Amino acid sequence: MITYSFEDRKGQSLQEYLYEHVRADIISGKLRPGEKLPSKRAFASNNGISVVTVENAYGQLQAEGYIFSRPKSGFYVSDIGEDLIPERMERTGVRKSADRILPEEENEERGRRFRYNLVSNSTAPDNFPFGTWAKVMRKTLTEKAGELLKTPPTGGVPELREAIAEHLREFRGIDVSPAQVIIGAGTEYLYSLIVQLLGRSSIYGLENPGPPKIRNIYRSLGIKTVMYEMDQEGILPVEGDMERADIIQISPSHQFPRGIVTSAGRRLALLKWATLRENRYIIEDDYDSEFRLQGRPIEALFSMDREDRVIYVNTFTKSLTSTIRISYMVLPPLLLERFRRELGFYSCTVSNFEQYALAEFIAGGFFEKHINRMRKHYRILRDRLIRELKSGSLGGRISISEEDSGLHFLMRVDGSQEDRELRKLAEEKGIRISFLTDYLVEGSDPEPYRNVAVVNYSGLDGEETAEVANLLADAWKRDK
Amino acid sequence: MITYSFEDRKGQSLQEYLYEHVRADIISGKLRPGEKLPSKRAFASNNGISVVTVENAYGQLQAEGYIFSRPKSGFYVSDIGEDLIPERMERTGVRKSADRILPEEENEERGRRFRYNLVSNSTAPDNFPFGTWAKVMRKTLTEKAGELLKTPPTGGVPELREAIAEHLREFRGIDVSPAQVIIGAGTEYLYSLIVQLLGRSSIYGLENPGPPKIRNIYRSLGIKTVMYEMDQEGILPVEGDMERADIIQISPSHQFPRGIVTSAGRRLALLKWATLRENRYIIEDDYDSEFRLQGRPIEALFSMDREDRVIYVNTFTKSLTSTIRISYMVLPPLLLERFRRELGFYSCTVSNFEQYALAEFIAGGFFEKHINRMRKHYRILRDRLIRELKSGSLGGRISISEEDSGLHFLMRVDGSQEDRELRKLAEEKGIRISFLTDYLVEGSDPEPYRNVAVVNYSGLDGEETAEVANLLADAWKRDK
Repeated sequence: MITYSFEDRKGQSLQEYLYEHVRADIISGKLRPGEKLPSKRAFASNNGISVVTVENAYGQLQAEGYIFSRPKSGFYVSDIGEDLIPERMERTGVRKSADRILPEEENEERGRRFRYNLVSNSTAPDNFPFGTWAKVMRKTLTEKAGELLKTPPTGGVPELREAIAEHLREFRGIDVSPAQVIIGAGTEYLYSLIVQLLGRSSIYGLENPGPPKIRNIYRSLGIKTVMYEMDQEGILPVEGDMERADIIQISPSHQFPRGIVTSAGRRLALLKWATLRENRYIIEDDYDSEFRLQGRPIEALFSMDREDRVIYVNTFTKSLTSTIRISYMVLPPLLLERFRRELGFYSCTVSNFEQYALAEFIAGGFFEKHINRMRKHYRILRDRLIRELKSGSLGGRISISEEDSGLHFLMRVDGSQEDRELRKLAEEKGIRISFLTDYLVEGSDPEPYRNVAVVNYSGLDGEETAEVANLLADAWKRDK
Repeated sequence: MITYSFEDRKGQSLQEYLYEHVRADIISGKLRPGEKLPSKRAFASNNGISVVTVENAYGQLQAEGYIFSRPKSGFYVSDIGEDLIPERMERTGVRKSADRILPEEENEERGRRFRYNLVSNSTAPDNFPFGTWAKVMRKTLTEKAGELLKTPPTGGVPELREAIAEHLREFRGIDVSPAQVIIGAGTEYLYSLIVQLLGRSSIYGLENPGPPKIRNIYRSLGIKTVMYEMDQEGILPVEGDMERADIIQISPSHQFPRGIVTSAGRRLALLKWATLRENRYIIEDDYDSEFRLQGRPIEALFSMDREDRVIYVNTFTKSLTSTIRISYMVLPPLLLERFRRELGFYSCTVSNFEQYALAEFIAGGFFEKHINRMRKHYRILRDRLIRELKSGSLGGRISISEEDSGLHFLMRVDGSQEDRELRKLAEEKGIRISFLTDYLVEGSDPEPYRNVAVVNYSGLDGEETAEVANLLADAWKRDK
C-alpha cells in the first residue's frame, strides 16, 4: 500500500500533494503500468485523510490520463509509454525557472543613446492631446457601456467607419461608403490582410529607396517583391519593366524618404497599367498626408481610380500617437465583396473601446483640431530648423528640398565626406541621422543618392532646433 | 485668356474653385499639353480675384503635376498623357458616391434570428465586470499618462507580460519569464505570427473534428494542412501518419468540439514526436482552460516540454469579452530568440492603454475573481440545463458527456433522425444548435460522429435553461 508522509507539503492542499506524488511515482516508474491503485477508502484511512480528498486526486489523475478506472473494480495505472519520457524531464513535473531569459532591448534604446533622433518620425508625446483623449475615453465608458460588449463586424464598429468616411470626404476629397472602410490594428496588420485578399502568388512592386519595414513585412509574409526606381515624378514606367509586378505599392502624396509627389501623368499611367490585366492593383499608402504643410492635400490616387484597382491605406498611429494601434484601409467595391466572402470570418483586431473613443474623437471635431494644430506646429518647427541650418556655418554647403509635405525634408551636403562618415560625425555629437542611401534595397547603385540626409524633425522640441543645427554644423565642418 | 464665372462655386473657396476648373480643363483636353497659362497677375485681374488666390491654385496644380513652371517664363500645361485617362473617368474629378454599397450583415445576425443560440460560445455580456473594468481604465488614464505614449517592444508592455507570467505561474503551473510572453490582437493574429516564425513551408496538422475558423485561417494564410482523427485520448498517432505534418496544433486541455483531454501518454508521445526532427513544433491552444469546472486545471503541455517544442497560446477574448482583443503566446527560449531576430521589427498590435488596463486588472486580482465567479456561474448553469434536459421528455433518449471542462457539453440524441433534421426542428423552435458533424473537415466519414449535439450553454441566462430544455424536447419528440 502506498503511503505518503504529507509532512513536507508546505502550502499545498492534501489533494494537490497526493495528486503530485502519485503522478511523480507513475512518471518515475515506481508505480507500473496496469498496477492497481488502492481503493479510495483504504487509501484514505491508510494515509489519515478523507475519502473526498482521494476521490478528487484520483479524478484529476484520471482526467489527465495517468490512471484509468474499470467499472466495479477500481483504478489502475495507465501505460503512458515510459520510453517516451524525455531524459531531461524533471521528475517533479515542475519546470525550471526561465529567469535566464533577458527582456528585449526596448525599441527606442538605440535612439536613447543619442540626444536628438532625426531618424524616427514619431511625434513627440507632448503633442498628443492627452487631456481631450482621456475625456473622450471617459465619455465612451459612460455612454457606450452596451455597445462596448457587442461583437462588431470584421471591418470594425460602424460609428468609427462612419466617422472616417466623413473625415475622408471632408478633408481628403475621398467619397466612400463607411462599409468600404476596414479597421485594423496597425498598417502592418492590414498588409497581411491585403496579401490574403489579393492572393499569395502576386508579385509586389515597391519604391526604391523606401521604408525597410515594408520590405521586411513582405519578406516575412513570404511574398515576392521587385523594386522600382523613381525619377522626380514617381516610379519610372520603363517599357517591359512594369510587367514584373502584379501589385504596386506607392505613397503618391509623399514618398518616403524621397518626398516625391507622384505626378498626375504618372498616376494616370499607373491606373492605366492596373487595368491592363485582371489581377493588377495599386496599394496607396497615404501614411502622412494629413501633414502636408503647404497648400491643400494632394488628391488621393484612390479618388482618381474608376476601375476598382486602388486600395487606400492610412493610419492614426502617425497622426495621433504610435501607441494607439488603429489603421484602416478603404477597399474599392469589387474587392470589398471579395473581402467579405473570403476574409469575413476574421474578427476585427481593434478593441471596441478604442474604436468608439476614436469615433467620438473624430466626430467631435477633435481630430481635425489636433491635425491643424500639429500642422502649424510642424511648419514653425521646420522653418526654424531650416533657418538655423542655413544661417550657420553649414549654410553654404547644404541645399534643402521636399520640405512641403510630411514630416521630413532632404538636405544635400556638399563635400567629399561619405554618408558613413557624416553619420559617424553626427553620432559623435549625439545626433542620430539617416541618409537616402540607408533606404535603398541591397544591391542598388548608391551613386545618385549620396550625400543626402533625411531629416525627420517631428520629434524635436521647438527649443532644440538651434542646438541641433549647431551640433550638425560643428560635426560636419570641413577642416578638422 | 481663360475666364471662369465663379458664380456656381457654392461653398468652395475661390482658390479651390479655380484649382478644380483648371484641372478639369486639363483633363478634358480643353487646355492642351504645353499650352502656356496666363500669368498670375493677368489671370487675377481678368477674373477679378487676388494674385495670391491664383498663386495658391497654381501651386497646388504644380505640386500634383498638372502644370509645370519654366523659370522667368511662366506656367505651362503638363503632358499627363491624355490617352491614359480612363473612359469612365468623370471629368469633374469628383468620384461618384459609393452609397450603393450595403453595410455587411453583422456577425450575430444569423444568431439573432433565433431566440437561443447554442452555437456561439461567447459569454453573455451581462457577466463581464464592466464596473470594475471601467474603474481600472479610469485609473490607468490617471496614473499611466506617461507610459501610455511610450512605444512598447514587439511583445507588448512589460507590466502586462509580468502580470500574465505571474498568473500563469499561480493558476496554470506554467513557469516562464515575462519576456517569453508575446501580446497580440487576438489569437487569429498570433497564428499569422506563428506561421511567419515557423516558416511557410511547414505542414500543419489539425484535429478533426475541430473549429472551422482555424482551418479558414490557415487556408487564408496559404498554409498546407493535414487532418488528424482522434480517439478518446486525443490524436491517434498512427504509424507513418504522423510524418505528414511538421507542426501539430491541438487543444490538449479541452478539445473543441469533442471535449477530449489529451491523455498523459499521448502528450508524451507528441512531445517525443516533436523532438525527432528539427522543425517539428506543437501549438497548444489553451483557449478555455480557465473554465474547467471540476478539479484543478489540466497540466499544460507547455510545462511538460523540455525541448523547446511547444508554443502556448491563450486569449482574454474568451475569458473576459470578445470585444477586448488581447491574446498572448508563450514562446520557448529558442523560438523566442528567433522571434526577436526575425519578427522584432513588428509593432505590438494592441494599444498601450488596454495593455496597461488589463495588467492592472490581473495584478489587482480582479481577473482571478472574475474567473472564479464565472466558473461558479457556469457550473450552476450547466447543472440546471442538464437536469432540465434529463427530467423532460427527452430524458430517456439523450446521454450527456464531456461536461466537466470548458463551456460546452456533448449530447447524444438516440433515434433515427438525422442531424440535418434535428437542426431544422430545433431552429423551428427558435434554437440554433450545431452537431459534431458540423465541425468535420469536408470529405470526412460522418458516421462515428452522428447524432451528437454540441451544446454551448455559456451565452444562456440562468432563467432560460428550462425553456431551452422544453423547446428542444418539444422539437425532437418522436411522434410528430
